[in-house]
Amino acid sequence: MARIAVVAGDGIGPEVVAQARKVLDAVLPDVQATEYDLGAARWHRTGEVLPDSVLAELAGHDAILLGAVGDPTVPPGVLERGLLLKLRFAFDQYVNLRPSRLWPGVTGPLGNVKPGEVDLVVVREGTEGLYAGAGGSLHRDTPAEIATEESLNTRHGVERVIRDAFARAGRRERRKVTLVHKTNVLTHAGSLWARTFDAVAAEHPDVATEYQHVDAAAMFLVTQPQRYDVVVTDNLFGDILTDIAAAVTGGIGLAASGCINPEGAYPSMFEPVHGSAPDIAGQGIADPVAAVLSAALLLDQLGHAESAARVNAAVAAELASRVPGVPLRTEEVGDRLAAHAVA
Amino acid sequence: MARIAVVAGDGIGPEVVAQARKVLDAVLPDVQATEYDLGAARWHRTGEVLPDSVLAELAGHDAILLGAVGDPTVPPGVLERGLLLKLRFAFDQYVNLRPSRLWPGVTGPLGNVKPGEVDLVVVREGTEGLYAGAGGSLHRDTPAEIATEESLNTRHGVERVIRDAFARAGRRERRKVTLVHKTNVLTHAGSLWARTFDAVAAEHPDVATEYQHVDAAAMFLVTQPQRYDVVVTDNLFGDILTDIAAAVTGGIGLAASGCINPEGAYPSMFEPVHGSAPDIAGQGIADPVAAVLSAALLLDQLGHAESAARVNAAVAAELASRVPGVPLRTEEVGDRLAAHAVA
Ligand SMILES: CC(C)[C@H](C(=O)O)[C@@H](O)C(=O)O
Ligand SMILES: CC(C)[C@H](C(=O)O)[C@@H](O)C(=O)O
Repeated sequence: MARIAVVAGDGIGPEVVAQARKVLDAVLPDVQATEYDLGAARWHRTGEVLPDSVLAELAGHDAILLGAVGDPTVPPGVLERGLLLKLRFAFDQYVNLRPSRLWPGVTGPLGNVKPGEVDLVVVREGTEGLYAGAGGSLHRDTPAEIATEESLNTRHGVERVIRDAFARAGRRERRKVTLVHKTNVLTHAGSLWARTFDAVAAEHPDVATEYQHVDAAAMFLVTQPQRYDVVVTDNLFGDILTDIAAAVTGGIGLAASGCINPEGAYPSMFEPVHGSAPDIAGQGIADPVAAVLSAALLLDQLGHAESAARVNAAVAAELASRVPGVPLRTEEVGDRLAAHAVA
Repeated sequence: MARIAVVAGDGIGPEVVAQARKVLDAVLPDVQATEYDLGAARWHRTGEVLPDSVLAELAGHDAILLGAVGDPTVPPGVLERGLLLKLRFAFDQYVNLRPSRLWPGVTGPLGNVKPGEVDLVVVREGTEGLYAGAGGSLHRDTPAEIATEESLNTRHGVERVIRDAFARAGRRERRKVTLVHKTNVLTHAGSLWARTFDAVAAEHPDVATEYQHVDAAAMFLVTQPQRYDVVVTDNLFGDILTDIAAAVTGGIGLAASGCINPEGAYPSMFEPVHGSAPDIAGQGIADPVAAVLSAALLLDQLGHAESAARVNAAVAAELASRVPGVPLRTEEVGDRLAAHAVA
């Protein structure tokens, strides 16, 4: 039995999560899903973001499936820090996994990149760096104001995520890991990342390695995304690079992610990269593919690699069959994906 | 008379700078150029990066024209921190100006963007943020190692660069400024940037404004670069975004930049965004357009807007006349640009 906590969230969250659940129910015999009402709507209603009691309940699940939280009416940071990042940090989800594929049938923005040519995964560190919340300000609202943000990096945190990246690369065909950082400017953290990367690389002579500065990587993701296999990088660089990778492979509407605690000491969390898209919420036209691909990552993490592969195959068939210009219906896509995944 | 300090540097630096000087000499009657031998070659020879005496001499010039410094044989950070960033900080070059245009004749990587449609400029803060060099490490080379990097932001530094961005937008046709930050995670610095932006915006009712998170901006630069006019952002975000902007407009081979001290208290510095490209150095095949466009920014900064416009027109003609597949010769391009700029 898989105990899944479902946080449908705001905007299109509930619509796309419903399809992901449909697909999960189709491929797994015994899913026990519990819904948790979190996000902008709850915050507006109760002022609560993530009560400790809910956090404790979530901890009792095998995984969390999240739709999207957020709304323009919530001040910046409230839900991000209070809910999304809180979960990532509380559940030590140090591997923020973001695969990007240019699926056959999908037209990306790059003229010279053909479907099937891009198949990369970014292993973004999820519990350190500039996301640690270390920083402050002085003399606020005066001409003397200063504000700081501190990137905190530990050998512990850097090494475990780099190890995960190498392990993933070892299971892939191309077996290549690219470290992305900014060692020429962020010399302290950069040096820690580079030395740790080299040490782990030495244990994996079968995996090819390269290093790129983040600015160069951002550029190459646009000019030659084909060159990447596994990319490992810090929390903030990963945030930016994964949105570029999503953009060049058809947009965040197709991008899945997993916030993973690989040891399973805490539940991992799976969510589409897109937001709550309030502009199209409630119309039944949101693309559920990113949510369904996130469910596939969830399946993989819980040890159901074969079911995950079937969901991915269903998505491949769905995307290959899409006719440009024909509007999609969220429910219908979910029905097709569920049907295909069990066939 | 314009007193220009020329740092040709390493690799293709001297080749492209020679063309930029050719063009400068053609459009300005009285250029007095002094060459300074700085970069990887000098460091290898003497162990020196930027002696104080040279820094003092550079300060006596109206502007600095730089080719490219660096070499894979120099450890990361030595020339970046010791030369490039040292100059930006010592000469208080707080406006790091990076225009990106998709010139007619240039095929960018984006299938749905036509030449002429992209014309944006990133005003990147140049003297603060994560580039301040604040950070350190403890327990190096042990499992307990930690490394930090600190982003330092002052109202002083943030306000002056935002003011510059609004002033530039006011002189452009579309009059729009986009602030890019990550206010939902970097809440302290983000709040300082956002509040300062709003305050300056209130003084410029004629300029349209928008805000985007850096991950979203990175994505939109790929999917809709046409939407940007002036983008203002911090030092590190600007580093990344300008490489994306360069990539979508034909590559860093065409990207110019200026590190500007707008008040003229110190010399401003102009350099192509590309590096020293040791792989093609000495062959006379490097594209000098980025260096020449950087010289145009220099002309503009020194008050020769009309000459700058003529150089830009020469570049436009050059790029429009290029035949794909025909290899270029650095010298010949320089000759053509110089001839066109005076015609
Ligand atoms: C919403 C925000 C906190 C989050 C992040 O920056 O990690 C988002 O951009 C993401 O990539 O999941
Ligand atoms: C070389 C490096 C220090 C520099 C930077 O990060 O600013 C470069 O990438 C640039 O953009 O000019």
